Amino acid sequence: MIEGNNFPYFTFRAQCYSSGSIEQRDEKVTAEEPLLIRLCDDMGCRDYATIMRTPVHDDLLALGFLFSEGVVKVPGDVRWMRYAGSEADKESSPKNALEVGVRSVPVGRAPRLVESSCGICGKASIESLVVEGFGVLNDRARFRASTVLSLPEKLRGEQRIFEETGGIHSAGLFDSNGEAIFSAEDVGRHNAVDKVIGFMLMNGIDGRGKALQVSGRAGFEIVQKAVRARISLVSSVSAPSSLAVDTALSFNLTLCGFVRQDRFNVYSGEERIEFDTVFYG
Amino acid sequence: MIEGNNFPYFTFRAQCYSSGSIEQRDEKVTAEEPLLIRLCDDMGCRDYATIMRTPVHDDLLALGFLFSEGVVKVPGDVRWMRYAGSEADKESSPKNALEVGVRSVPVGRAPRLVESSCGICGKASIESLVVEGFGVLNDRARFRASTVLSLPEKLRGEQRIFEETGGIHSAGLFDSNGEAIFSAEDVGRHNAVDKVIGFMLMNGIDGRGKALQVSGRAGFEIVQKAVRARISLVSSVSAPSSLAVDTALSFNLTLCGFVRQDRFNVYSGEERIEFDTVFYG
Repeated sequence: MIEGNNFPYFTFRAQCYSSGSIEQRDEKVTAEEPLLIRLCDDMGCRDYATIMRTPVHDDLLALGFLFSEGVVKVPGDVRWMRYAGSEADKESSPKNALEVGVRSVPVGRAPRLVESSCGICGKASIESLVVEGFGVLNDRARFRASTVLSLPEKLRGEQRIFEETGGIHSAGLFDSNGEAIFSAEDVGRHNAVDKVIGFMLMNGIDGRGKALQVSGRAGFEIVQKAVRARISLVSSVSAPSSLAVDTALSFNLTLCGFVRQDRFNVYSGEERIEFDTVFYG
Repeated sequence: MIEGNNFPYFTFRAQCYSSGSIEQRDEKVTAEEPLLIRLCDDMGCRDYATIMRTPVHDDLLALGFLFSEGVVKVPGDVRWMRYAGSEADKESSPKNALEVGVRSVPVGRAPRLVESSCGICGKASIESLVVEGFGVLNDRARFRASTVLSLPEKLRGEQRIFEETGGIHSAGLFDSNGEAIFSAEDVGRHNAVDKVIGFMLMNGIDGRGKALQVSGRAGFEIVQKAVRARISLVSSVSAPSSLAVDTALSFNLTLCGFVRQDRFNVYSGEERIEFDTVFYG
């Protein structure tokens, strides 16, 4: 239908730790960028939703999404699609706003953010955190590599609901020695993090010098939530997204991914990791 | 802060297939229910967001979520919390609407759905699909157990971006013989499904007799999207949520979970699975 973006991944420099040795490598990271979908009819256009997505097959995504939303009933309901520049995406990829021509734009529904609890997504959102007064993390916390490696198993040990159902996300807060402070489970991985942050607020716990271990991937929103809570380190058993790495770099948050067995990658804030004195015995 | 819900899981009857033999079992499934968060000040209350969540620690979730949103800056910004009945949750759990007293309700932002692209979440959403005219799936499609078991590996074989980055979700459409029709990858698992559905629409592909394999969990929205696209079978390598099972049962969609190696569970629509003639050789 349209010639879309095709940025499946970006490359970032990472510190790759494995069995006691460390190596700098260029790591491919799945692209995560916002797509603003605008609906247009004879009366004009209006913003409908912003979706955090990997910029491949935008046309299929928009069509399928609008069908799932009930806005489009049959393919013919979509008359045309075109990329449009907008204020929001000026400094980002030029193809992050998509106008979709439909018979009539549904009224009475406000623009929505899907898969996201950020105000404005993407690079604009990194800037908005700065505007809100969230500065670079400048704590001097240190975490031993062996502590990072121990977090996934410790978190798993805290998962009560997972034991029963075999399927639920989890997030846990640990101190710099790897001692568990609080963990929470939820069907939504962002919810699990919000529960941990709620606990921190309710109990006056400072994020500095703390590590947040998550059971899933480290996407943009997870890192954004951690920056707000001033958490020093985010550790994921799986991959980060490109926007998560960008955000971590912007705020000097330590971001560890693929924390598995005896290896992990550090994408940002590697000065907080003590690679020595482990695995040499 | 408040005495909240505590429904970590529900129990469903499932057909559990393993190495050629089949057994009926009661399986615990992680609870997924909507939480409406309303913000209240001296001027009154208004809906702020609906979150699909597991009903444990609602107070922590609300506090952490509102902090992540920038609505709450310090814990003292929240004056009180209380559950409130509402039209939307009358037929669901009585504690699915939470009113949060704040100094002043932010203006100019419409209520939002988080982690969701449904209109109204939960049981109300199942009903709204019926109102929209989506009937029970009554196709006579059949899938051999061996076909279901083959889908995860086939989908993995289609994943081009995963090969590069090691972290991205995927969804694939297969015919009843397990032949791949189309697959898509995205940082968002719902997006991957929307791309597949967009492809179906663009190419006039009927969902009847087709199986949708997803790389992640089978939550409510995945099943909802499949019902809309009239797909006969949804297969997940991981767990379904309670609302996903409820929805599949309501529309007689075949829902398979924990499809791994030589086993899987069927939570709904088991008449479409041919358990015989496999693994007897």
